[in-house]
Amino acid sequence: MSRYDVTFLPYNRKITVNSGETLIRAAMEAGVHVNASCGGEGVCGKCRVLVETGTVSGGESERLSAADLESGYRLACQATIASDLTVRIPVESAVDTSALGTQVTPRQTARIQQMDFEELKEEGLFVPPVEKIYLELPQPDAQDHLPDVTRLVSFLDLQHNEHRLEVDLRVIRSIPDIMRQADFKVTATLARPVRERGKARIINIQAGDTTERNYAIAMDIGTTTVYGQLLDLKTGDILAEHGDFNGQISYGEDVITRIVYAEKEGGLEKLNAVVIATMNKIIGRIIKKARIDAGDISTITIAANTTMTQLFLAVNPRYIRRAPYVPTATLYPPIRANDLGLGLGDQVTALVYPQVSSYVGGDIVAGVMGAGLYRAGALTLYLDIGTNAEIVIGNQDWMACAACSAGPALEGGGIEFGMRAAKGAIEDFSIDPVTLEPMNITVGNVRPRGICGSGLIIIVAVLFEHGIINSQGKFSSDLDTDRIRERNGVYEYVLAWQKDTQIDRDVVLTEIDIENLIRAKGAIYSGCLTLLEEVGMGVADIEHIILAGGFGSYVDLEKAITIGLLPEIELDRITFIGNGSLMGAKMSALSNHIRQDVGAVTRMMTSFELSETPSYMDNYIAALFLPHTDLDKFPRIKQRLDERRAHST
Amino acid sequence: MSRYDVTFLPYNRKITVNSGETLIRAAMEAGVHVNASCGGEGVCGKCRVLVETGTVSGGESERLSAADLESGYRLACQATIASDLTVRIPVESAVDTSALGTQVTPRQTARIQQMDFEELKEEGLFVPPVEKIYLELPQPDAQDHLPDVTRLVSFLDLQHNEHRLEVDLRVIRSIPDIMRQADFKVTATLARPVRERGKARIINIQAGDTTERNYAIAMDIGTTTVYGQLLDLKTGDILAEHGDFNGQISYGEDVITRIVYAEKEGGLEKLNAVVIATMNKIIGRIIKKARIDAGDISTITIAANTTMTQLFLAVNPRYIRRAPYVPTATLYPPIRANDLGLGLGDQVTALVYPQVSSYVGGDIVAGVMGAGLYRAGALTLYLDIGTNAEIVIGNQDWMACAACSAGPALEGGGIEFGMRAAKGAIEDFSIDPVTLEPMNITVGNVRPRGICGSGLIIIVAVLFEHGIINSQGKFSSDLDTDRIRERNGVYEYVLAWQKDTQIDRDVVLTEIDIENLIRAKGAIYSGCLTLLEEVGMGVADIEHIILAGGFGSYVDLEKAITIGLLPEIELDRITFIGNGSLMGAKMSALSNHIRQDVGAVTRMMTSFELSETPSYMDNYIAALFLPHTDLDKFPRIKQRLDERRAHST
Repeated sequence: MSRYDVTFLPYNRKITVNSGETLIRAAMEAGVHVNASCGGEGVCGKCRVLVETGTVSGGESERLSAADLESGYRLACQATIASDLTVRIPVESAVDTSALGTQVTPRQTARIQQMDFEELKEEGLFVPPVEKIYLELPQPDAQDHLPDVTRLVSFLDLQHNEHRLEVDLRVIRSIPDIMRQADFKVTATLARPVRERGKARIINIQAGDTTERNYAIAMDIGTTTVYGQLLDLKTGDILAEHGDFNGQISYGEDVITRIVYAEKEGGLEKLNAVVIATMNKIIGRIIKKARIDAGDISTITIAANTTMTQLFLAVNPRYIRRAPYVPTATLYPPIRANDLGLGLGDQVTALVYPQVSSYVGGDIVAGVMGAGLYRAGALTLYLDIGTNAEIVIGNQDWMACAACSAGPALEGGGIEFGMRAAKGAIEDFSIDPVTLEPMNITVGNVRPRGICGSGLIIIVAVLFEHGIINSQGKFSSDLDTDRIRERNGVYEYVLAWQKDTQIDRDVVLTEIDIENLIRAKGAIYSGCLTLLEEVGMGVADIEHIILAGGFGSYVDLEKAITIGLLPEIELDRITFIGNGSLMGAKMSALSNHIRQDVGAVTRMMTSFELSETPSYMDNYIAALFLPHTDLDKFPRIKQRLDERRAHST
Repeated sequence: MSRYDVTFLPYNRKITVNSGETLIRAAMEAGVHVNASCGGEGVCGKCRVLVETGTVSGGESERLSAADLESGYRLACQATIASDLTVRIPVESAVDTSALGTQVTPRQTARIQQMDFEELKEEGLFVPPVEKIYLELPQPDAQDHLPDVTRLVSFLDLQHNEHRLEVDLRVIRSIPDIMRQADFKVTATLARPVRERGKARIINIQAGDTTERNYAIAMDIGTTTVYGQLLDLKTGDILAEHGDFNGQISYGEDVITRIVYAEKEGGLEKLNAVVIATMNKIIGRIIKKARIDAGDISTITIAANTTMTQLFLAVNPRYIRRAPYVPTATLYPPIRANDLGLGLGDQVTALVYPQVSSYVGGDIVAGVMGAGLYRAGALTLYLDIGTNAEIVIGNQDWMACAACSAGPALEGGGIEFGMRAAKGAIEDFSIDPVTLEPMNITVGNVRPRGICGSGLIIIVAVLFEHGIINSQGKFSSDLDTDRIRERNGVYEYVLAWQKDTQIDRDVVLTEIDIENLIRAKGAIYSGCLTLLEEVGMGVADIEHIILAGGFGSYVDLEKAITIGLLPEIELDRITFIGNGSLMGAKMSALSNHIRQDVGAVTRMMTSFELSETPSYMDNYIAALFLPHTDLDKFPRIKQRLDERRAHST
């Protein structure tokens, strides 16, 4: 893919982008505001720009006059970049140069932190929990009457230094015939003990040499989505992966409604069956995708939050949602996958990530393992943001964790036009500080239907930065625009007029929406702060932030800090781990060392109940401001606001 | 029960017997021959004796003349003892006094060796493998969020010093509700690890205090019969026991025919199902007898020979009967009883005794444990005699074992009138050395139908002692009696004429029968001798003989030595352990120490394949004599024979 330079005039701002990118997205990325109401579908006609040099394709809309077209005007949202370009933003659709200088900060999402497989190998941490060993056994004769299993076990002991082996009855049953059919040339699959002093078990015996075919499955059971990966234990490669909605969704959107359903007659059995069905669907899919034989799968590792874990194991979660909120167990023993209803061979044992508490579950423990937090020197804040936010603070020496209910605002819930990040969701935004006209960019470049979580953060941050809303999230009353209006006693900003939307109404952001967002971010921020205080530390001590979960991949970090969702820290110290739970599950599948560490790490994670920590409520109330009551906690934001105020006065 | 003195004249031999005993059995016990052909049913009328003083009841047969009755004659087989007595044996039915002096040696069966439970306790060996602990747990509250399982495990750790516990998923599932229903007062059942370093597992959780109810089952799966015992783990008592025929009998009498059946399509599944059904029948029976709740049974231990073990575990035994005769495994892991099809609660784990080789199985290992051989200082010979004889020689320091095929003669097989020890089987015998008239005593005191194994040994020994057969088992040709005759070219002794039997023929013992017995005893004796030689020892080194199996309970020891079945040793050094396999199963159920020792003991048992030991055949051929080619191996017998010869010349 070619990359081209695009220079935006009159601001003389240059950016290098991929060919085929739309001009409007390039402008947003360059920090250049272009009025745009319809999200990029080309219907509002507001984003006309003049292509002075170079070639674009498209953008010749009927919304432009013949003269404009002739002059080189194009709709920025429809024109895609086909060469180096110089593009001029018309004066009427942008503010003056000086104002623009600070208007749109470049979007910066978190750097993706990936598991470094090579590093894992180098550190000796790549010791798959199951190993295949090919054996050419001596055959019994008149002088050698060793029983079949003893023959196998002794040979492994003498030739391969594998001591103290246990053999499953199921394997014992298959040994005599397989050995003789294969002329005593067989492959044994050994499952390493999780405990150091435990015994290794022979879980499978196959004719001939099958050592090249040794696979594992890693799974993350999310409340919404279940993901599975098929892993090659010889190389560490992901051979296939697949995600699907958790079939339990029809029985409730969040963990609480699921627990309520599970308490009904037959409810637990139903939810259990449904999630097992989802898992089996995914397992079938990745086996098919990878074109492997299910008989060569040796293990499955599973991470999930506490409620999902209990439902998947058919352990009644009723006490999770009742004070004092205790889960049934932290550690679960290794369990035959078959016994759980998973459509895997008898040889497969399921390893389930342990839980810390009712609301800090195996997904978080897995994330801590997957992100390497438990081996970090730097003080790290691990943050998994969703309806509930899970917070871990610590490093290799200690870890404190807590969960707080953020409410659904960050996922679009409780926001009048909130929606998931699907087509038509406003995902990026800027504003003309003079005309207060918006620049909406939507998922899929179509007319807006609503606002997704990451878009919401940007919109609120931008409105706040421009003084359109104050630190309480209230609209300034002295702004001269019909985009800000009162409806049913509530002030709101019209992001898109009805004609520019896909729906039969204006898409707006109300003060109530803003309040909900502030509550959500306040809960998360004060959760982090309280947890830090509980261990005698402060925000300034944080050296690294790891974001996990779907939320972290799209959120603009500076905007998130601007509204006070994330503590202020240099942006390059924030990384994004993606599905930390799945990554942790993968790590355990690939490394028995990791498995061995999990128990100790889980015990190390001291859990705090924020609702019972008196300072939490104070911290929460102090955090119900943009970015915070105490601006000294956000020196960079404070400076920017001060500069802007100085500028506008 | 009163006991009376009976004096037999003219020999002046006195014996003390229970009231109600028949005179003929008292005579046999006293070593006094009385002619008796009909086994004690009172039809042959030969056993007339004169009651000189005292009272008998019965015996006034129509076979006696009125004069005889008047004089005090009675049939010895019909008259039972009701007071102290003086009884005269008529001259015509007995030899002269001097000859009789050595004629009938008193019967001496082996002293029963029982497990001394108190001793076990004193030695600290009574540590049941499952233990119940009653707990009053603190309840969770706002300051105590411990997960339910963690609460249980930590409490056991802190209050009961139980570290490193594992909890079954099944138990985890039941914990939350049981804990709360029982107000956090619960009883946990802990299964101790067999391995010293293993983890204890919590296998059950019950509301309230159930520590008084903790039971185990011990089982022996014999080829013919299956026995079960229900044990109280708190006291060590047997609460109930029951035996039943192994349902597999319809598919073959011995292990070889069972293996052949198992090789047929569906045969293994069938035999497995059938023995499991037998076990379940017994389990149901003993639970009912003991009136306990099956939910309080915590463990089952099972001992069986190698073939029975493999059939019961559904492990194909086909290679047991094919050279080089290897079993599938020695050790089997602990297995959930449910997974085997046993009708026991989910909490019950089955522990199966390990095998040494194809023909020295878990029943023998169990016997070695049950008899305490593995803790013995004295050099001990453990002998389990059946169609196959299993031999163990050793003590606490070492053990050698072997099996040999004795053939069915000792169980009545291959003997023309051989039968099991059922009603009508001649079980005791003496002979009038002058008239060669027999004294037959049968099981149930009825007319003879055949000869059982222990009777066969006595008959052959008596015939040999009196020189009626020679050391090759051939009849002397110069004896003047119609009881010895030739039929189809084979000599035979008529034990009972047709009129005195229950059948339509004479009951006889042929030279072929004697030959078969000699082959059987020769195989066993030479097995013992060869095994001793292999470890550089001889018969004289044996300090103790332990007989196991049904055979050992009835056999007359001196007669068994006389024919050369058992090595010559003082009779009080021979003990009988009964069902050693069941005793071993019981020991493991009661003592985790024993369980821990089993593995080491099994490894200590060096197995010898007699068929591949060159000296075995030589020893076998040398043993095909009564008692043996080398009479120096039987000094006591040699002396008796010498004395008798001196007497008769």
